[in-house]
Amino acid sequence: MRVNGDMTQLAFQDYYPDQLALCYGCGRLNEHGLQIKSYWEGEESVCLFQPRPYHTAIPGYVYGGLIASLIDCHSTGTAAAATYRAQNRAMDTEPPLRFVTASLHVDYLRPTPIEAMLTIRGVVKELKGRKVVVASTLSAHDELCARGEVVAVVMPDEMLK
Amino acid sequence: MRVNGDMTQLAFQDYYPDQLALCYGCGRLNEHGLQIKSYWEGEESVCLFQPRPYHTAIPGYVYGGLIASLIDCHSTGTAAAATYRAQNRAMDTEPPLRFVTASLHVDYLRPTPIEAMLTIRGVVKELKGRKVVVASTLSAHDELCARGEVVAVVMPDEMLK
Repeated sequence: MRVNGDMTQLAFQDYYPDQLALCYGCGRLNEHGLQIKSYWEGEESVCLFQPRPYHTAIPGYVYGGLIASLIDCHSTGTAAAATYRAQNRAMDTEPPLRFVTASLHVDYLRPTPIEAMLTIRGVVKELKGRKVVVASTLSAHDELCARGEVVAVVMPDEMLK
Repeated sequence: MRVNGDMTQLAFQDYYPDQLALCYGCGRLNEHGLQIKSYWEGEESVCLFQPRPYHTAIPGYVYGGLIASLIDCHSTGTAAAATYRAQNRAMDTEPPLRFVTASLHVDYLRPTPIEAMLTIRGVVKELKGRKVVVASTLSAHDELCARGEVVAVVMPDEMLK
């Protein structure tokens, strides 16, 4: 399992330009947000996240909206990173690529314990021009708790007006 | 459009017993959380929510995880309220009914403006024993921004241990 051994490695989200780094889920500049960090581990992307005590559903378990948020932002980050890879480009080259979510599906397989470090792993299922499909799993204590699928598309220009 | 004219009406979530009222999305006792409130409006359930400035995706727009969270918690609340209705029970009668999410699907149809009051409306598509399917829409400025579907199931007893 990858454990950020290489502290010099930047996360996908560290490459987002400042004006695209304000997302509550994944923006490094959103001080209220989750600030998730995603990395390649071979062909998979991985993100570790420690829920905060108030991210409860009922006491002891993580609320579903956090799980959806983690899967969503990890997947759009993976979509961007995979597209840079497919174009043989480093993530700090211009123009920046950002993806938004067209659809999100999450199957909640078992209650997710809140004290655990969560591991979200993504795999690119389809990468075709402006659309990338990412399948993700979310595990706690090495048990699979949720499965997700995100259809990500390149951010429309009108969002950047 | 419903505008909480009747301030004496309690929201679905106001009936949750204290130990089930800590959810980040919908628990009235989670001081860090969203504390959404859902009500019947005829056969539809409705919830109004004002995003906070830090709930951004990119500046000006709501991040998808919030939209997923609102649809999720509004739908599980609707599932509970609909089941009380189907059983001809008031929501303050014992035993309490709470639902958890088995699956969540969201289609993001257009960017959701962050300054707008969001309206989430739910309709019960299926109510069968321990399983309820709720279809929801999320609108801003009367424009449809997202569509969701939640499969909710009665909370398993082991979650209440």
